[in-house]
Amino acid sequence: MTAVDSPGRTGRRPGNSGARTAILTAARSRFAEVGFDKASIRFIAASAGVDPALVHHYFGTKRELFVAAVDLPVDPAVVIGALDAVPLDQLGEQLLRTVVGIWDSPLGEGAVAAFRSIVSGDEPTLLRTFLIDVVLKNIRDRVDSPQGSGSARVALVASQMLGVLIARKVIGIEPLASMPIDALAAAVAPTLQRYLTGPTP
Amino acid sequence: MTAVDSPGRTGRRPGNSGARTAILTAARSRFAEVGFDKASIRFIAASAGVDPALVHHYFGTKRELFVAAVDLPVDPAVVIGALDAVPLDQLGEQLLRTVVGIWDSPLGEGAVAAFRSIVSGDEPTLLRTFLIDVVLKNIRDRVDSPQGSGSARVALVASQMLGVLIARKVIGIEPLASMPIDALAAAVAPTLQRYLTGPTP
Repeated sequence: MTAVDSPGRTGRRPGNSGARTAILTAARSRFAEVGFDKASIRFIAASAGVDPALVHHYFGTKRELFVAAVDLPVDPAVVIGALDAVPLDQLGEQLLRTVVGIWDSPLGEGAVAAFRSIVSGDEPTLLRTFLIDVVLKNIRDRVDSPQGSGSARVALVASQMLGVLIARKVIGIEPLASMPIDALAAAVAPTLQRYLTGPTP
Repeated sequence: MTAVDSPGRTGRRPGNSGARTAILTAARSRFAEVGFDKASIRFIAASAGVDPALVHHYFGTKRELFVAAVDLPVDPAVVIGALDAVPLDQLGEQLLRTVVGIWDSPLGEGAVAAFRSIVSGDEPTLLRTFLIDVVLKNIRDRVDSPQGSGSARVALVASQMLGVLIARKVIGIEPLASMPIDALAAAVAPTLQRYLTGPTP
């Protein structure tokens, strides 16, 4: 925390690579500590001993910094953003197809590695804030009916999707692991749809 | 593997504690390699350099050895066995209440620790064989209707239960993490029931 009081005054002048690494390390630590919403670029920059402008220059927005800090192969907000145009009554199926489509693609390996690293580590906040504050934020707002139910709805969706990830990609429970996406959607999409728009949880 | 050819002939005469540890290590390794069904007490005993009778003497049945080898706080087959008498149309809710009841009890901490250790390790077979061949075996046979669908049904059940475990006990996604069991059952039991006895997956 001492670096907070002296950003840029520590005498450190890291090279490009050193500054990037310092920023990523500070970012991961801060996101793990207080979550995505409460973490600030200013604080992270100070911890890394650099100017906030350099953080933006290297990584862009706070969300993009998060994606880089947890070493994700794809920006989930961009992927999930495609769902903003999907009608609510088709959201369960499209969410499943979109997310599992990533996991089954060449990008999936990196996603699974990031997941295992987070589950086994002592940073549960990192995965929680990723799912709730980054991935599912827009969906939560859309399904908040009746008002206040959105958090429970997306928490239930997250639970089923996490379970599919583990069963299909981490431990390989057959026949779910090699089930064609159409069959998987037929089985699991009704669950997601009920969590999203069914009876109030 | 060389020990297989010379069980009891290695000159090793480990004390009680040494033999127990050797058996547990050999058992965990073998279960992780070939799964619960294909692992034999004879092979494990040979790997540990002891007589098979000693394995039975220390640990009882193969299932009890498995429970000890993966350091579970409770024998899941005994817990799940209580579900054998539950009518099929109530199985989803009773399964959820029984399993989450364990996780929420003082035993839950050990169960979560075992789960995290397995997910983060390189032994996916261990968790898979535990879920499918030990925990869900009887249920799979009961819900195999139409014939051949039982494996997909319990794989889907496993996916939702794994997701609840992670969301509730590992990363703490609210409000699911602190949801009273009745509310959780109202939300998730219909999912489990549909997987168990609903349309063929």
